[in-house]
Amino acid sequence: MTTPAFTPFSPAPAGPDAAAPCVLCAEPGGLLLLQRPLWRVVRVTDTPAYPAFYRVIWNAHVGEFSELPRAQRQQCMEVVCAVEQVLRRALCPTKINLASLGNVVPHLHWHVIARFEGDAHFPQPIWATAQREAAPVLPLTLPELDALLLEALKTLD
Amino acid sequence: MTTPAFTPFSPAPAGPDAAAPCVLCAEPGGLLLLQRPLWRVVRVTDTPAYPAFYRVIWNAHVGEFSELPRAQRQQCMEVVCAVEQVLRRALCPTKINLASLGNVVPHLHWHVIARFEGDAHFPQPIWATAQREAAPVLPLTLPELDALLLEALKTLD
Repeated sequence: MTTPAFTPFSPAPAGPDAAAPCVLCAEPGGLLLLQRPLWRVVRVTDTPAYPAFYRVIWNAHVGEFSELPRAQRQQCMEVVCAVEQVLRRALCPTKINLASLGNVVPHLHWHVIARFEGDAHFPQPIWATAQREAAPVLPLTLPELDALLLEALKTLD
Repeated sequence: MTTPAFTPFSPAPAGPDAAAPCVLCAEPGGLLLLQRPLWRVVRVTDTPAYPAFYRVIWNAHVGEFSELPRAQRQQCMEVVCAVEQVLRRALCPTKINLASLGNVVPHLHWHVIARFEGDAHFPQPIWATAQREAAPVLPLTLPELDALLLEALKTLD
């Protein structure tokens, strides 16, 4: 298993408010694993208590899931599902958490988070008050996990 | 607009551990709006700060979204999307929050929550520490909102 070759990030065209550009239009939103014409997948690197935390980000500046046409909703969720499946197979987590919130950055993105009994917030959502100090030890390195994800994602449009 | 006639709840067959039955196999999980063979939609009634909070619950005891076959994943998300669309049209919320967590009850269910700037946790997720005491005043009653949802959901399998 080798470290994946990350694709360079292509910013979206200028968002609806060029004076206050959307951070997910201007920046990858995490460590970029793969960018396709419509979506990209990044690993979240600023939550040490949750190392297996990825985001599926829609490239275009769309606020809500239901703004996408049906075919694109399906495409988006197949990417979310592929990330979930790799995390489940590679890590056997207690639970996968999926969320599309966007209150701070209203640009469609899905959080895909592997949760483990005994992690910092379990069984609460990761946005709740921490229950304890803890960080899961994964059975493989993050570059190895990235490589598994990249392999699965490469089959998707 | 009339108050919808709620369908009676049909419990799922006994779950994998009959000694500790799953609460979402045994109970509706909220005020039942509509139950179809594969899914149901309920309104969450125990979060007064979030009156426009619905759940799409998969009837069968499935833990993770990716355990569903592709056609059922699509079916499930079309229901989530329909709920989101009604909430957006009826309430013009600041944001819709979608989440499938299940750390406490690992039985597939999607939270669909209308969020408003100035609500109790905004812009944080509703599971974070409250920012203020607040409850949105909706432009229509909850039975009226339920009726709009029921009308939209009746077209779905």
